[in-house]
Amino acid sequence: MSDERIAVGVDLGGTSLLAAAVADDGRVLGRAKRKTRAERGAKEIIKRLEESIREALAAASLGPEDAAAVGVGVPGPLDPSTGLVHCCPNLGPSWDNLPLADLLGEALGMPVSVENDVNVGAVGEYTYGAGRGARDMLAIFVGTGIGGGLILDGRLRQGARFSAGEVGHMVVQAGGPACGCGQRGHAEALASRTAIERDVRAAIRGGRPSIVSELMDLDNGRLMTAGIIAQAVQRGDAVVIEAMRDAQHYLGLLISACVNLLDPEVIVVGGGLTERMGDAYLEPVRAVARQHYVNQSDAERVRIVQAALGDLSGAIGAAVVARQRSG
Amino acid sequence: MSDERIAVGVDLGGTSLLAAAVADDGRVLGRAKRKTRAERGAKEIIKRLEESIREALAAASLGPEDAAAVGVGVPGPLDPSTGLVHCCPNLGPSWDNLPLADLLGEALGMPVSVENDVNVGAVGEYTYGAGRGARDMLAIFVGTGIGGGLILDGRLRQGARFSAGEVGHMVVQAGGPACGCGQRGHAEALASRTAIERDVRAAIRGGRPSIVSELMDLDNGRLMTAGIIAQAVQRGDAVVIEAMRDAQHYLGLLISACVNLLDPEVIVVGGGLTERMGDAYLEPVRAVARQHYVNQSDAERVRIVQAALGDLSGAIGAAVVARQRSG
Repeated sequence: MSDERIAVGVDLGGTSLLAAAVADDGRVLGRAKRKTRAERGAKEIIKRLEESIREALAAASLGPEDAAAVGVGVPGPLDPSTGLVHCCPNLGPSWDNLPLADLLGEALGMPVSVENDVNVGAVGEYTYGAGRGARDMLAIFVGTGIGGGLILDGRLRQGARFSAGEVGHMVVQAGGPACGCGQRGHAEALASRTAIERDVRAAIRGGRPSIVSELMDLDNGRLMTAGIIAQAVQRGDAVVIEAMRDAQHYLGLLISACVNLLDPEVIVVGGGLTERMGDAYLEPVRAVARQHYVNQSDAERVRIVQAALGDLSGAIGAAVVARQRSG
Repeated sequence: MSDERIAVGVDLGGTSLLAAAVADDGRVLGRAKRKTRAERGAKEIIKRLEESIREALAAASLGPEDAAAVGVGVPGPLDPSTGLVHCCPNLGPSWDNLPLADLLGEALGMPVSVENDVNVGAVGEYTYGAGRGARDMLAIFVGTGIGGGLILDGRLRQGARFSAGEVGHMVVQAGGPACGCGQRGHAEALASRTAIERDVRAAIRGGRPSIVSELMDLDNGRLMTAGIIAQAVQRGDAVVIEAMRDAQHYLGLLISACVNLLDPEVIVVGGGLTERMGDAYLEPVRAVARQHYVNQSDAERVRIVQAALGDLSGAIGAAVVARQRSG
């Protein structure tokens, strides 16, 4: 087993972190999941990262000496060349200007690479998932926000300020609804799960009946999950179906904008809604996108497909990045 | 003189064509301009292309034997690898499936490359104009339409279907005004000279006074030129200033969308309005774009600058492409 070049990738999220020991061929040999416990601060989280990495290796009957490199996908802006995290809004102020690659590297005694969490998800899907074999791929992950990662000519596009791929903040409807970033009309404010939830809650407040009131307690501060949305759609709930249709429309417009700019081969769509609803979610998105392609010839060659690696795309991609960067 | 590697580039437009004999260092040694005479068909235009190429060389006291290669920027979809033009809506049906590189190459007895006209403009600006020295550049040309060309890692991005860079057809305001392509809310329908003209004419029809009625005959079917628009702005015409401000706003939004997706170093803006108005045109565009960057750090590093080569960007870029592709 130790002949293989094992790399460990970690997907660090605001609520949980997932580590995977990944073989050369993309197989996940072992994994470990823990709560992030962001409130305990960076030092504690780095310890939890370290433990989860050892645990993922142990789950594959491996030790630290079997791993060639470690990669971490981090939810915030950072400098991949130095391993310095600029900040992580979801993880708290102890992450401001944190030299994560150095700190975790010292703790583990092996090279650590860091990269944006959405970018590693894109790398995972490109290398071992739905983007395999393409030359260019745009990955769009739709959750409470909308993130993206761009692979061009087989390489992750990081951008001059390491902030490429922010598809969620492309304007799709000038003057439209407010986005979390403070501006208006961005794709995230129109096509994310948060946008669907906003519209559904507004309709319910306006007196329209919706099954969502039965499926969840609307007053306990919890978010509407992809599971609840998918269930409501399946049960024919008009309010959710309308909000979903709007979100699909705007996601289609976003994709068309990216296609008209980049003309890529494949757009990989990930996130809970695609995972649960598959083509029922993607087919209307494809139809809208295609309508807006300025080049209508060979339009069917632009594939819009579901992500293949589910929750593991980030951890697998982080392992790929680690392997690439450790030479 | 014949020691230098001279290449000839031609910018083929719907109304005129411009050929330039270009030295290694980007100097234009000779040029020739003619009417396109699209109504006479492809065969005649190819003859005119040939004549203008010889004329540009002659203007530099050179002969065909001094030119290493010829490139033509063509206003329509084409396959640069085969030199086949798919169609040119502005030039008529005789251009459907025209093997332009082969036909012109035979006539001239030298290798001919063809490329999209906006792409060669981008290559010109990147190599010898406002994009010089950058690694990544997006060029946006604002005229009656809006075209774009994308250079990433120093190379022209053509796209899987050779249709990358179509920034004019990125949705900026879902459901917005009709675009020439038949869809709604594209940047071209909001920020082009055509969009400004539409809004100015609507205001005048609605009874608002505008100096444009004096500057041009609004009923003779002529288009409102950049010169007329610039003049009206300079003379404080409220109607034109408002229409212009809207167009600048939407161009800023378009640029922000491209920056959030690609995070390039420089955006070069070309076309008659920038040429005539310079920073008075670009400053409001910059302000709007910057507001919408999701990465606000180092925002000043994203340069939005005026194109430097004017009418010659296409011809110079076509010469660069020809030189690159002839080895």
